[in-house]
Amino acid sequence: MKFYDFKAAPNPRRARMFMAEKGINDVEIIQVDLGNVEQLGNEYRAINPSGTVPALVLDDDTLIAESVAICRYFEELQPLPPLMGRNAKEKAQVEMWQRQVELQGYLPAGDTFRNHNKRFAGRAIPGPENYEQIPELVVRGRARVEHFLDILDQRLGASEFVANDVFTIADITAFILIEFAGWSKIAVQEKHANLQRWYQDTKSRPSADA
Amino acid sequence: MKFYDFKAAPNPRRARMFMAEKGINDVEIIQVDLGNVEQLGNEYRAINPSGTVPALVLDDDTLIAESVAICRYFEELQPLPPLMGRNAKEKAQVEMWQRQVELQGYLPAGDTFRNHNKRFAGRAIPGPENYEQIPELVVRGRARVEHFLDILDQRLGASEFVANDVFTIADITAFILIEFAGWSKIAVQEKHANLQRWYQDTKSRPSADA
Repeated sequence: MKFYDFKAAPNPRRARMFMAEKGINDVEIIQVDLGNVEQLGNEYRAINPSGTVPALVLDDDTLIAESVAICRYFEELQPLPPLMGRNAKEKAQVEMWQRQVELQGYLPAGDTFRNHNKRFAGRAIPGPENYEQIPELVVRGRARVEHFLDILDQRLGASEFVANDVFTIADITAFILIEFAGWSKIAVQEKHANLQRWYQDTKSRPSADA
Repeated sequence: MKFYDFKAAPNPRRARMFMAEKGINDVEIIQVDLGNVEQLGNEYRAINPSGTVPALVLDDDTLIAESVAICRYFEELQPLPPLMGRNAKEKAQVEMWQRQVELQGYLPAGDTFRNHNKRFAGRAIPGPENYEQIPELVVRGRARVEHFLDILDQRLGASEFVANDVFTIADITAFILIEFAGWSKIAVQEKHANLQRWYQDTKSRPSADA
């Protein structure tokens, strides 16, 4: 198995943190240099036509792109510890929270970052197609993330972890959302006491360094 | 179990089509009148604070919001026929395609629709927070969907169904993307022969009327 990675990017980090929580460390890791736009070169696009990282290539050459699809693969391959729920109800709750974190937090944080940073001028959307930046999305993304941090703080006042009473992929996505939002100077605030507690707990897990 | 629905909206339809494919028909269906913005009223927000449909409420009062989380629940509850993959590799492939359809097609189609339609002035994002429409997103969303239809056509030239050799949730999402994009007059074109073949096949399934 080969895992195509870029150390600094949030999406590959989601998959690496997931693998670290499972103790999976027999995957060959190959860096793709996003700094030099290597992901859009012919060589990498022959591996993953979407031109994105992460991508996992199985020993039979099957391509698994998208960080959550890679997590799904490892969850099925090695169910313990379960990071996507232990039964039908929990699996649905994890999926719900995972998607709410993505739709209300992670994607808006991406809107703010991609539409602001000069490095992404003319390529506001990941992948090979070129789209101009939309400055209004910088503002809207920020407002949406700030609102979502309030929701997350409220949730973490009622629940030890994001989706239920154990650590799951929804915690990984929420943790990396917060680190990623920090790149755009969107920060957890003093009023977010629950979120701060959970963030420090998550940051102290060995997988946070993966 | 109660399923909060709005007949015309694309997200509840994804869950209804999924249930229909599984032959699940013992769920109480309750219409929420999005035409009158009932989803943002106190009564419905006491059920689903996100103010979105669909939402499933289990007999123990657990809330499962988000269409794909509802599908996940039914997949685990009643595995046959499998609509999310039959083994680790397939589950990962389904997740990959499902997400590519959503990120590259379904969400951009939503951008175009929500930021254009006058009914959504001041509420360009689903849910209780108000955000102004961004006209540039109408154009960008359309361009992205049109590009994604080319990708989907190419995929359906190589594969009978979107994710692999059987019908899955990725086909449901792609089918409803196409119907939804039609609301913004984004259409499958004559050059998309594979996509046309697959679209007609999918439209003729009984679940397409769910």
